[in-house]
This record gives sequence, structure tokens and C-alpha cells, in this order.
Amino acid sequence: MYRFKPELRIPGPVPVPNEVSLQMAKPMINHRGALFKEHYPKVLARLGPLFGTTNQIHMITGSGTAGMEVAVSNLVSPNTPVLCLVGGFFGNRWAELCAAYGAELHILDFPWDAGIDPEKVREFLKHHPEIELIFVVYNESSTAVLNDVEAISKAREGHSALLVVDAVSALGGTPCQMDAWGLDVVVSASQKCLMTPPGTAFVTFSPRAKEYSQKCRASRYYLDLRRYDQYMEKSETPFTPNINNVFALEEALNMIEAEGLDNVYARHRLMRDMMRSGIKAIGLELLVADEDASPTVTGVRYPNADGFRARLRERYGVEFAGGQGIHANNIFRVGHMGYATPLDVLTALAVLEMDLKKFGQATKAAELVMEA
Amino acid sequence: MYRFKPELRIPGPVPVPNEVSLQMAKPMINHRGALFKEHYPKVLARLGPLFGTTNQIHMITGSGTAGMEVAVSNLVSPNTPVLCLVGGFFGNRWAELCAAYGAELHILDFPWDAGIDPEKVREFLKHHPEIELIFVVYNESSTAVLNDVEAISKAREGHSALLVVDAVSALGGTPCQMDAWGLDVVVSASQKCLMTPPGTAFVTFSPRAKEYSQKCRASRYYLDLRRYDQYMEKSETPFTPNINNVFALEEALNMIEAEGLDNVYARHRLMRDMMRSGIKAIGLELLVADEDASPTVTGVRYPNADGFRARLRERYGVEFAGGQGIHANNIFRVGHMGYATPLDVLTALAVLEMDLKKFGQATKAAELVMEA
Repeated sequence: MYRFKPELRIPGPVPVPNEVSLQMAKPMINHRGALFKEHYPKVLARLGPLFGTTNQIHMITGSGTAGMEVAVSNLVSPNTPVLCLVGGFFGNRWAELCAAYGAELHILDFPWDAGIDPEKVREFLKHHPEIELIFVVYNESSTAVLNDVEAISKAREGHSALLVVDAVSALGGTPCQMDAWGLDVVVSASQKCLMTPPGTAFVTFSPRAKEYSQKCRASRYYLDLRRYDQYMEKSETPFTPNINNVFALEEALNMIEAEGLDNVYARHRLMRDMMRSGIKAIGLELLVADEDASPTVTGVRYPNADGFRARLRERYGVEFAGGQGIHANNIFRVGHMGYATPLDVLTALAVLEMDLKKFGQATKAAELVMEA
Repeated sequence: MYRFKPELRIPGPVPVPNEVSLQMAKPMINHRGALFKEHYPKVLARLGPLFGTTNQIHMITGSGTAGMEVAVSNLVSPNTPVLCLVGGFFGNRWAELCAAYGAELHILDFPWDAGIDPEKVREFLKHHPEIELIFVVYNESSTAVLNDVEAISKAREGHSALLVVDAVSALGGTPCQMDAWGLDVVVSASQKCLMTPPGTAFVTFSPRAKEYSQKCRASRYYLDLRRYDQYMEKSETPFTPNINNVFALEEALNMIEAEGLDNVYARHRLMRDMMRSGIKAIGLELLVADEDASPTVTGVRYPNADGFRARLRERYGVEFAGGQGIHANNIFRVGHMGYATPLDVLTALAVLEMDLKKFGQATKAAELVMEA
């Protein structure tokens, strides 16, 4: 029907603005030359306000998971006691990564439709003074839950464990205050709220995390943070980076700064609220309660969701994401992050309404809209 | 002088053809969607003739070094006896990687201006039946040497060690016959002769190497080959890849196939021969003898080479690479790979001639050219 203009509404990769895309097509330059050295440290510094930190931010050529593994491979030695807070697919990825590095793995499991309870973390830590590292996901995109990492950080109280945060689908869409909240490591990636193409991860360590990482005995080379620190002294990367992505990110940051960070965050909250109101009005069931809802992605319960998604893609060119893990085929997820506006939320809701109406699943909102 | 049109003549990243660059700016798509799944396995299969293999080729979002680490982290367990053949900066990188993974490291050192002698490899292996893995660089771009990996492979004779080859700056510029030569692992990257932007590595394992990797005990996750194999079954990558790079590579392969692989290799040999004849005619000293010369990059001895390079960049917009390791500041290197033609070799030689003439270092060729 409208397939000639595809509408990507998945929680990453997100549509890339033309201004950003065109940077990807710029002529190749030397990554050891003056132009790269001029732009690279500046771009990374401009990410500081998004992370809420004055710590050095590093760029890794790789997927978001490569960024997560920078954290694990520079912190987790064999038998290091770690706590993974698992309430979804990406929390589980932390646990898999820690297991791959031979950690003494403790897992606190939480329901895959609600936020992580800081009280349970506090209680666990009280009885486990040996834990050295805690791994958590800020925005669990698999469940569309925003976890309260500030409260989780505080739940440590006097406990010395470092807090490592996956902010891949949060950064740039919702406030992150690494320094103020006492987060020790924060990881993110390019293809979510930063609205640049996939292939770049970002990692930043607090001074305490960097100090702790000195004793790490894990095998690592490409992801060894020490090399990135060493080369940063001459404004370079240790290995040939995806050069144009630096310029793409620069352009994306131009757009984010022009809108203003607070306005960017407000836009994401508005999209969340619109999406949730619309889903309720249509008569579908939200996966997550209001208080735990993500500002960047919304999960909707739906039987045989994958068939439904295929129909929407086929008929309207609108692409939603499916469920992961225990939610496979029983939810769909609508991304509203990065290069997305409230108008994009309206169209996402419109195709849901139109389709449900057309196929005899009339809903209250559909009645109102379609029969007006 | 001509700086408004920069001429990148370094051994990677190389200039990217516009046809390829524009693929980088195409609209973002879902990496779990039909379009990606359709193109991804086809593009990888088209790399088969360049690697000279029917083995599955995998694409890793990362620098070439990430590809090298796929080899090491999937093969080297603590105390695995390995042999690294080191005749340059990237041979040394193999040794560093193996050391990082706790190998029992044996190094055969070769001069940094000549090819690796297969006889010395044969001799070493005769006395070291315990060696399980041999690491070598096909085209050592730091010294502009092309190693005879076919002869090195044969030098194993009855020895069971697997041969792991870094073909980063060779693949697509000179023939590689993985299967016929009995290579067990071959690694390459996008930003050299494949003339696509940096950020993608390629890795392929022989059945014997894959079998051997099953017993590997190294910690790995992002670079775990098993995950790539598993996801390949559904024509996907385990982690969000740099999607547009797949389409860029597709376009580059269109160009390579249109020219014909044999013609591509002949073009590289011609550029090598032209460059070497020109350098000799100018009266400068080549780093490497004819029989070991790389078809993709040429090294030239020059005192205070970095100052000279800066002047060439400043005056003519032509960028050569410097020396690495023991060659720092005493050689310069001219890349002639990928999107490069014999005309580009002529202009590289021309600026050398003009500059040496202008600054009083008249040479025979400069006399001829400048005073004609």
C-alpha cells in the first residue's frame, strides 16, 4: 500500500537523518592525519553532557555488544564475584558475557515486564559483601522498561561494588547522570537515540573503575581499554576506526544540540505518553505499567504478534519489532527514539487502528477514527 | 598548491569510489528484516573467489584487528604452543595477540625488509612438532613485503600445525587461494583492496580450523565464531552490524567483478612495477628487493621521511604513509591498492620528482621531466 516509503519503527537501528547519512558518503581520509585528530576528541567530548560525565569517553568500532564486552573484558577476571540484574534479554546478555569471562556469577531475576526493584538489590548486597561488580541495563529495550539506575546505584549504600550500566537504548533519549548518580561504567551505541548508523559503541569508565581494571587478568586486545587510553593521548584510535561515523556523529550532535538536550528528552517523554495513551485507547494491552515505561520504546501484548507485524509491514510499509526471549511472538515493540517525532507516533497508531478495524477487530479508537 | 583535491596514497584506508560511498548514505533498514537477509549471504559468497575458498566467510563489525582476534580468540587456549612469523609491524601484532591470550609463544624473526624464508619455517617445525598454530602476514604493509604464503604452507610438509593468515592488505589486490594452498584461517578487512570504508573485518575458517576451535578455552563473546555460524543459518549476524557497509561492499564487488579479478590483480602488479621503476629512476632507494615486493604498497627509504611527507601533503595535497616500528621516520610508503590506477602512480611519482627538484635534490628523472 505505502511500501515505497518504508517507516522503520524498531528500537534500533533507527532512521538516520539525511544530514547524518550524507556524512557517511564523504571522501575517505587518513585516520592518522590532522583532520581526524582535530575532530575525534571534540566529538567524544560533546557526548559528555549526554553521559553526564567529565570522564574520557571512548569510541569502539563495533556493535553495542562490543561496548558491553569492553566493560566485561576490562573488569572481570576468572572467579570475580559479580551480580547481574536480569529483567530482560539484554540483562541476560550481561550474564552471558560475565559467564564467558569466568565470573563467579550471581543473578537476581526480575519479571520481564517491570523495573528492577532497588530494594531487592539492597537486600542482596547486604548479604553479599564479596560482590565486586554489578551489571544492569538502563533501558531494557526487550521489555520496554526504563530501570531506575540512580536508585539502584544508591541501593549499594556503603557497598564497594562498581556499577556497570548498559545505556545503549537510553543515551540521548533520557537523562543519564553518570557522575552525579555514581555510575562506574556506562556503555552506549550509535544506532539508537544518537541516530547515526550502527557500528560504533561508546564506553566510559569512572576513575574508580579504571583503577579497578588495572588488576583485570582477562585476555583482551582489540577491546583493551588501555590501548584506547594510550592512543587518545595523540587524539587517535589504536585501530583503524570507521572514520566517517565520527563525522556522522558530529552532525547528529549538531542536531541534538540545536534542539537542546532537555527538549530532546521532553520529546521522548511525549512520544512515550502519546504511544501509551493511543495503545490504551485502541484497546490493546501495554506490557509495562506507567511507572516503569521506557521513553524510547513501547511494548504491546499481542497474540501471534509476528504474523501481525508481517501484515503491517506488508500493507503499510511500517516495521515494528518483535518480542525477544520469553516474549517471542507474544508482544510487538514500537521504537520511538532518535530521529522520531510525535507525528511518527500518530502514524504508528494510525496503522494499528486501520488494520484492526479492517480485519474486524474494531476498537473504541478505531471506531472513532475510522467512522468519523 | 593542489590541496583542494586531496590525494590519499596510504596503504589503507584507501579512497572509496563514489558508487560505493553513496551506498553508505542509503536509508537505514532492519538488520533482522527481509532485505538484509537477502543481501547478506550473497555478498559474503561473492567474496569466495577473492579468498579462493568455498568455506563460509563471516563479516565482523570492527577493524581488521578485530578479525585477527577472531582467529586468536577462537583458536588459542592458555599455553597453546604457537609460532609467529614476524617480519614487520603486523607480524608483531599476531605475536602480541597470541601473548594476550596466554599462548606458549615461539617467534621466528625475519628482517623487516624482505620476505619470510620458508626454509627457516620448515627447519623450525622439524624441531618443534608440538606447535599447533602458525601465524603469518600475507602482505606485510608495514614493510611493503608480499610473503609467499603458499610456500610457507607447503613448508609444513607433514606437520599438523594450522596456518593462520592475515590477508588484510592483500585480499582483492593479489591472488589468494585459501583452499588450494591449504590455508586454515584467512582474515581480511574492508578498507584496503576492497575499497569500502573501514569498520568491517572478514574471517574464514577451514573445516579443520573449525574443528580445532571447538576445544578452544579462551574467553570470548563478541568475537565468538560459533555465534556467527549459528546466526548465519538464518542469514543474520548475532549483533547489529554496520548494515550499509554490506551494500557498500556489494557495490565494490560489482566494480571488481566488472573489471575481472585477473585484471584487478594485473592492475596491481602494473602499479607495483611502475612505482618501483619510477622510484629507481628518481634515484631513491626501495626498501624491498623485486622478488619480495608487495603489489599493493611500496616502501622507500628516506631520511627524516615524516618531514618530507608533511611537505608533500602541504604543497601538493598528496598523502603518503610513514614507517612503523623500526622504520619510523626513515621510510615512506605509497599505497597503490583498491581504487587506484596507473595514472595515480604517475602523479605520486610526479610530486616526488617536482619536490626533490624544487628543493635542490635534483635527480636523473627530475632533470628529464622538469627540464624537458
